[in-house]
Amino acid sequence: MINKNKITKPTITIIKNGTITTPAGFYAEAIASGIKQKNKLDLALLYSNNTCLVSAKFTQNKLNGESLKWTKKIIKKNNSCKALLVNSGNANTAVGAIGLTHAKDIAKDISKKLKIKPQEVALASTGVIGIELPMNKIKKGIEKIELGKKSGQKFSEAILTTDTHSKQIAIEIKSNNAVYKIAGTAKGAGMIHPNLATMLAFITTDASLDKKWIDKTLAEVVNQTFNMIDIDMDTSPCDMVMLMANGDDSVGKIDSIHPSAQIFKDGIYLICEFLAKEIARDGEGATRLIEAKILGAKNNAIAKKVARSIISSLLIKTMVKGKDPNWGRIISTIGNTTPKMNEKKITIHIGKIKVYDKGVPISANAPSAIQEMSNECVLITINFDEKQGTATAWGCDLTEEYVKINSEMTT
Amino acid sequence: MINKNKITKPTITIIKNGTITTPAGFYAEAIASGIKQKNKLDLALLYSNNTCLVSAKFTQNKLNGESLKWTKKIIKKNNSCKALLVNSGNANTAVGAIGLTHAKDIAKDISKKLKIKPQEVALASTGVIGIELPMNKIKKGIEKIELGKKSGQKFSEAILTTDTHSKQIAIEIKSNNAVYKIAGTAKGAGMIHPNLATMLAFITTDASLDKKWIDKTLAEVVNQTFNMIDIDMDTSPCDMVMLMANGDDSVGKIDSIHPSAQIFKDGIYLICEFLAKEIARDGEGATRLIEAKILGAKNNAIAKKVARSIISSLLIKTMVKGKDPNWGRIISTIGNTTPKMNEKKITIHIGKIKVYDKGVPISANAPSAIQEMSNECVLITINFDEKQGTATAWGCDLTEEYVKINSEMTT
Repeated sequence: MINKNKITKPTITIIKNGTITTPAGFYAEAIASGIKQKNKLDLALLYSNNTCLVSAKFTQNKLNGESLKWTKKIIKKNNSCKALLVNSGNANTAVGAIGLTHAKDIAKDISKKLKIKPQEVALASTGVIGIELPMNKIKKGIEKIELGKKSGQKFSEAILTTDTHSKQIAIEIKSNNAVYKIAGTAKGAGMIHPNLATMLAFITTDASLDKKWIDKTLAEVVNQTFNMIDIDMDTSPCDMVMLMANGDDSVGKIDSIHPSAQIFKDGIYLICEFLAKEIARDGEGATRLIEAKILGAKNNAIAKKVARSIISSLLIKTMVKGKDPNWGRIISTIGNTTPKMNEKKITIHIGKIKVYDKGVPISANAPSAIQEMSNECVLITINFDEKQGTATAWGCDLTEEYVKINSEMTT
Repeated sequence: MINKNKITKPTITIIKNGTITTPAGFYAEAIASGIKQKNKLDLALLYSNNTCLVSAKFTQNKLNGESLKWTKKIIKKNNSCKALLVNSGNANTAVGAIGLTHAKDIAKDISKKLKIKPQEVALASTGVIGIELPMNKIKKGIEKIELGKKSGQKFSEAILTTDTHSKQIAIEIKSNNAVYKIAGTAKGAGMIHPNLATMLAFITTDASLDKKWIDKTLAEVVNQTFNMIDIDMDTSPCDMVMLMANGDDSVGKIDSIHPSAQIFKDGIYLICEFLAKEIARDGEGATRLIEAKILGAKNNAIAKKVARSIISSLLIKTMVKGKDPNWGRIISTIGNTTPKMNEKKITIHIGKIKVYDKGVPISANAPSAIQEMSNECVLITINFDEKQGTATAWGCDLTEEYVKINSEMTT
């Protein structure tokens, strides 16, 4: 007798050229409405046939953008939406009461266009803070947008600000005789401190998800991925990670005891880690990715703190830029972060090369370490040799180009 | 009858061209021993005829330099010293057990030369981390040093690393029919995060001071001056502020109830604020000083946190570099730091120009604000309009030159 419910080994496959509209029932479009100069794409619409369950994480910044305030409110009330409008080039933040009026107007315009309720329209805005949205341009833009199945790539491009390229990924999960698709797209940030050029990430799936389970799962995954690219050191008023799941509930929701729960979580992790690393790699002016890997720390929390301090230290960012295997800067940054340290137990590797061995620098290894620092991704591994705490964080180098980009006049 | 003890209004006068040897009984010298390249001064000796009472604050970094460890130990034990040797170009840090052996050897050599005990010799080292001190050069250097009364300026120069100029000040206090001299010198830091090119400050005085009172007073003053140039965000393993007072105890110690206590504290504050601002102003690659002034915060602790976040934000540093009055970056940085914020009460000035008024940007003032940002010191004032909390912090702009300096190979 064949057991139809026999659990075969679940698989994750990356879908070539997949976009945010790869999961069933999602449509998108993007246009150049004139918020940005040079006729660049700046208005992006995502739509789902079915109402989507929404799980989202918002910025920790006490200043909240007006579009974000709107989205927070409708998600809190309904846990759902059918459409998402993103504009880039302007954060709709710190502009006074007019900002929320603008957000409401945009949601209303979209709702009329799509014949849905304004409360079913989520919004995200990213770009310069403190300048009012050019509402005429946006209203005209919304009139023009025509949704389609093939515009996922354009959606990804339209949400960018200073990023050099779009960031997207889609996967297929086969598990327990079911097939799910999940896709994600994100925009990067000024450097890896997404303060102005805010960090946004959107995830779509055609699976049906249990609200409680996905909220917990997304929080866990975000903590290990987007939150490890140093987001909350300088969170922007508009940071947002939003997952939209439009699967039919009657088919069976994925929850904590569902046989596909683990593989689905793995899939979301894969997407979020990919996008987080893409954001770090594409930091303003960056030439190389930095990965800080902490092993043997007293606990995971300490490991996390150290990993983040490594990737956010200006002195480490500039040393990576200069391909300088300066273990002194690394050990000093550790000393700034750990509650206690025993330098005699600490070992530091740059790539595969050991540069610091239980409190003693290995100067002879400097030439090989310089070689390792020429790689596109510079791996710094720190082993505390204490307990089992581990963490990984991602950042990028600091270059003259970063200063150039960020010192240019925006007002 | 004339009352000899009549308290006249105390005064503080800045002594023109004053140096660390201006207070009575202090002697100094500095030479180029070869630690640094290009025959630059790198070994500096300070000596007092009388034993000095010492009050000191040390780095919060868990990694401690070996010279600092030595100094911490002798100060803890004796609260006093007669000599201080500072070397620049090498931090004597993270080099393994040999570092403390080197420190002991240096103290011994100085003690022989000056006919004092090794425990009377304080040490400070600043420069690259993780490389052993070139002891032969230092030993030969120590032999050559000849103390004098006129070498205070040379001392100030020899303690520098990447600073562009020496930093020193001396004052005279007249109070309660007594005259005291106090002098200070400091070295600046890589940017205003004194991580590698460590921050050192030395203060001399010919007054006699009560240990308990000066420890408390120095801690208070350091918290409002050196600690407001963002030192402990990225403290180095060798940061040190050390005050040496060689006055004769029999004359009467200044303590909390001494009539000169307040004016003497004012004098120390003046010196520390001057040196702190000089360090910020002379940050690597910096072109302008940033002063962040917080008013009307809920309490001083919150004001301090916000002031420091303003001067350490990369986005604000680069906007000052570009003379861009981008209030959006300022309000967003506040949102990252305050436990709560009511943007409708917040007002922001750049120099004298209001750019943000109780939640609403004043875009029309941008051109005047650009003018204010051309000043050598760019003042950013934030008024929370809540309670009485205030704080001031100092930083500098971030330039391409900073990246250049810090990405150059050190190993």
